[in-house]
Amino acid sequence: MNLRGLWRLLVGRPLPTSRMAHERLTNAKALAVFSSDALSSSAYATEEVLRVLVLAGGAGLALTLPISATIVCLLAIVAMSYFQTIHAYPNGGGAYIVSKDNLGPGPALVAASALLIDYVLTVAVSISAGVAAITSAVPLLHEHRLALALAFVAFITVMNLRGVRESGTVFAIPTYLFLFSFGGMIAWGMVRLMVGHFPAVHTVAAPPATHALTLLLVMRAFSSGCAALTGVEAVSNGIPAFRPPESRNARIVMVTMAVLLSALFFSVSVLARHLAILPVAEETVVSQAARRILGTSPAYYLVQVSTTLILILAANTAFADFPRLAALVGRDGYLPRQLANLGDRLVFSNGIALLGGTAAVILTLFHAETHSLIPLYMVGVFISFTLSQAGMVRHWRRVRERGWRVYQVINGFGAVATAVVGLVVGIAKFGEGAWITLLVITALGLWMRGVRRHYDSVADQLRLTVAPTLIKRFPRHRIILPVQSVHNGVLNALRYALTLGDDVVGLHIEIHEGSGKKLQADWEKWAGEVPLVILPSPLRTVIWPLVRYTERQFALTGEGDLVVTLIVPEFVPRRAWHHFLHNQTALMLRLAFTHLPRARRHVQVIAAVPFYLQE
Amino acid sequence: MNLRGLWRLLVGRPLPTSRMAHERLTNAKALAVFSSDALSSSAYATEEVLRVLVLAGGAGLALTLPISATIVCLLAIVAMSYFQTIHAYPNGGGAYIVSKDNLGPGPALVAASALLIDYVLTVAVSISAGVAAITSAVPLLHEHRLALALAFVAFITVMNLRGVRESGTVFAIPTYLFLFSFGGMIAWGMVRLMVGHFPAVHTVAAPPATHALTLLLVMRAFSSGCAALTGVEAVSNGIPAFRPPESRNARIVMVTMAVLLSALFFSVSVLARHLAILPVAEETVVSQAARRILGTSPAYYLVQVSTTLILILAANTAFADFPRLAALVGRDGYLPRQLANLGDRLVFSNGIALLGGTAAVILTLFHAETHSLIPLYMVGVFISFTLSQAGMVRHWRRVRERGWRVYQVINGFGAVATAVVGLVVGIAKFGEGAWITLLVITALGLWMRGVRRHYDSVADQLRLTVAPTLIKRFPRHRIILPVQSVHNGVLNALRYALTLGDDVVGLHIEIHEGSGKKLQADWEKWAGEVPLVILPSPLRTVIWPLVRYTERQFALTGEGDLVVTLIVPEFVPRRAWHHFLHNQTALMLRLAFTHLPRARRHVQVIAAVPFYLQE
Repeated sequence: MNLRGLWRLLVGRPLPTSRMAHERLTNAKALAVFSSDALSSSAYATEEVLRVLVLAGGAGLALTLPISATIVCLLAIVAMSYFQTIHAYPNGGGAYIVSKDNLGPGPALVAASALLIDYVLTVAVSISAGVAAITSAVPLLHEHRLALALAFVAFITVMNLRGVRESGTVFAIPTYLFLFSFGGMIAWGMVRLMVGHFPAVHTVAAPPATHALTLLLVMRAFSSGCAALTGVEAVSNGIPAFRPPESRNARIVMVTMAVLLSALFFSVSVLARHLAILPVAEETVVSQAARRILGTSPAYYLVQVSTTLILILAANTAFADFPRLAALVGRDGYLPRQLANLGDRLVFSNGIALLGGTAAVILTLFHAETHSLIPLYMVGVFISFTLSQAGMVRHWRRVRERGWRVYQVINGFGAVATAVVGLVVGIAKFGEGAWITLLVITALGLWMRGVRRHYDSVADQLRLTVAPTLIKRFPRHRIILPVQSVHNGVLNALRYALTLGDDVVGLHIEIHEGSGKKLQADWEKWAGEVPLVILPSPLRTVIWPLVRYTERQFALTGEGDLVVTLIVPEFVPRRAWHHFLHNQTALMLRLAFTHLPRARRHVQVIAAVPFYLQE
Repeated sequence: MNLRGLWRLLVGRPLPTSRMAHERLTNAKALAVFSSDALSSSAYATEEVLRVLVLAGGAGLALTLPISATIVCLLAIVAMSYFQTIHAYPNGGGAYIVSKDNLGPGPALVAASALLIDYVLTVAVSISAGVAAITSAVPLLHEHRLALALAFVAFITVMNLRGVRESGTVFAIPTYLFLFSFGGMIAWGMVRLMVGHFPAVHTVAAPPATHALTLLLVMRAFSSGCAALTGVEAVSNGIPAFRPPESRNARIVMVTMAVLLSALFFSVSVLARHLAILPVAEETVVSQAARRILGTSPAYYLVQVSTTLILILAANTAFADFPRLAALVGRDGYLPRQLANLGDRLVFSNGIALLGGTAAVILTLFHAETHSLIPLYMVGVFISFTLSQAGMVRHWRRVRERGWRVYQVINGFGAVATAVVGLVVGIAKFGEGAWITLLVITALGLWMRGVRRHYDSVADQLRLTVAPTLIKRFPRHRIILPVQSVHNGVLNALRYALTLGDDVVGLHIEIHEGSGKKLQADWEKWAGEVPLVILPSPLRTVIWPLVRYTERQFALTGEGDLVVTLIVPEFVPRRAWHHFLHNQTALMLRLAFTHLPRARRHVQVIAAVPFYLQE
């Protein structure tokens, strides 16, 4: 099987455009695709809060539930805001579109840049976290963790290249496995808690405070917990992947996701508090809770395995959104247009490949170590939250539909809250790596502006400005055929050259002195009246005598009306390695001409005439 | 300064072919270029002998001088044999030419393959040995030894790309520095020895024998010492680099080199024996001798530095010979022909670059560690010695000039001796790595045969077999211009297409349904009567509708007389990165067509018509 066959086996046969609507996701699959990132955060958000609060001892830990409740409120506000956005932008309304519509291209580019980079980091962070979970269980694999991580990236990339629907099917299983096992464990724990079924907790003394309970500490605890908010924007970016009515279906999935996430996150916080679970280095908070609730039973291991799976799968949400956003931005001319091309399988293959490739590079640079990637993360998502909601505030002022003042207040509050959290996150993590993210966001934004400027300039140059007139042929066409010796390949090219026009000339460049004379007789036998020009080349180069020859032609006949075609016989061998055995004249000439100053590129077209070799 | 400017600065301006004779080497420079490999072996050959003999204690060491004398005799025989070869093959007579002339193509390919590989190994071994000498002095550099080695390879490669004469000038200095300091030290030592000037040697007790003095041990000592013979063949391969009369000058240099090498090697053996120097791990034999003769003086350090330099420089001999041999073999069609092209600076640049690149790869693979490279080495050179001298035996039988029987005996003895030594070397080092060399020599030899077979087949296909008839144009020429929308770039291409012939057709591939209709009106305004064909492409591919369309054309008109040209408008941006912003349609089509089965490649030529972008 050749490479092409292997590729087809991996990603499947091409799909016709008419299948587009069939490739949409059912709500159940959409929930799996778009919420794995958000839901997976319930596995660690409580722990992040506890880790900070425990520094202030018992007094600190007492704030666990108030802070969790605040985060849930913030989550509700953000979710509500996006609920409104989906309603207002039924064709997909990520931070980029909302900003572009309401705040202008500058903020839109910042939002796009921040989100694109955050998606790449989501892939890198979630895969390295998942791999870390695996290598904790099987330490033997620790030294192969980069290879493992890259294998996961490759797997998710290929699955996504297969198409939206198929990857939805494959990735739905682990998401629902997580929901049922993890959610079931939490529910069972809450029930036992309510009926007072747990044995009296030997109130473990809270560790002594090592840090005063300052406002800053509370802020840090709060902003760490805000990891729970990442991934909430996923649905609003992905509306076109839903079945019609897209907007309604997206809102259903969005609300379901927000409710599930809130319930899971808050319940974990309640359980941790009432079971007096403390964050320790050796075991996660969720694992401790599961062990208390389920004992070290098969059910406990199921929870652990499904948690690991959903951590890796969070990467898939980025694969659902990044290519779509890149296509939107590309269609607007701020990124290479190729990102907007639908691939064989009706997905934006270029975007998927770009995301997979970039994530692989970042994983390699950071050796797939979660702790060095984490500080880069989360900054981008809060920038896009803030811009998106600020945009919605403007939106309501413009459209003034019924109840717009209430909506505006909700979005306004959301904008301020996410801005504050974003600022806290940025400052707390600046030195550890957030500066890299901010730098890259800025650079990418500026580059995107440069891309658009180039496209605008090209469009200007392509625009037809004069009134339509029938296009006519060039008055004069000189066809040049370089000849080193007369053989079947040259005769084949000569036949083609004669087909193009009457003004054909053979051109011999004399690299070895006296070779022209020997050629002359042969040439006359086969080419008859076609003139043969012989040019000396003491420096043994082919390109310069040619350039000077065409320059003389143009000097003689005047620019504008003359066009020159260079015909190059080219061997096409049967096997790839045979290419190395032949002078790649056509290729070399093409390269040499692209390095010439434009004023000296008198050859309009280099046409390679293939001569198919049999062996 | 751009890349091209930097390159010119490194290798210098192009030289005209007429300078060829001026670029030849004077005998003094030729001695430096061609003998650095051979002379450098006097720095370690004695030590190699002692290392083996010392295993048999005093009885073993007593054989030092007899064995050294035998090696000198063998050296004399080999040198005499090559002296005769230079006489018989005044245009250059390496093992390859002599074998080809007298033994046939099979042995010639073995000789060429063995020598080429040996040259690569010479570079790798001598540079890593030189770097090891440096890092012994400056241990800080030890961890950077691969980088250092690669830097030396790069430096020698660039110097050789500059041209034969210039590299001769640069590399003559260290060779003569070595001859004067090392030779002077030896001479001074011999004088002091003869006048009995050395203080009485406290006869250091020879170490106890750990091994019986078997014939095998003697053979091993002898074959280790035969390292002194490597490099002797260099002059005979390089005759064309000498000034006229080439053959005479080459013989002068050859004899000078053999005499110097014999004198240095044998004197070191005499001094080591009479000064009772034993091989130890910490210090080389030559360094011990120098310290005894000169004391730890500046003169001693000069000897050490110049020894290091010549060890590195031995690589340069390979750079003088490998490209020349590769060019000879390439000219015969056993290697890619490009190796026979004279570069800008009148040297075989491709061969130089190939040698530098291959040596760099090998150094990287073996981490620039001399001890792992050594076992690969020397097998090749003895294979080529044997073949070369066996060839000369045949030669004398053929030409029967005066005294041919004596010559034949000398060459015959040389062939047998080098065959035996080669066999011993091969067996002793087989397991340590010589098997790799033998495998690679075989593989390269077979590959060269394959290359020649391909060239022969191509030559058959290119050969003009029918009687000359005037070449005529194709009766029908269809010109296809793919159009996605009408803009200045397309009109430019249309103008060119109309220049090529009358049968032009615009071809629109409908990737988005209904796009053809919109195009129609625009097209008619500018292209008038030129027909526009609209093809649907439900799978959004450009190539297949095109292939099927041309297939229909051929089915309608019959093969043979129709030729099809595809005209592709191509943007040429000002900056390189802008290429990523445009669909590389011409490139993609070219690639797609090369992957088509030949029977379906009805498009004869793909002509990209450039549209030069201003910004």
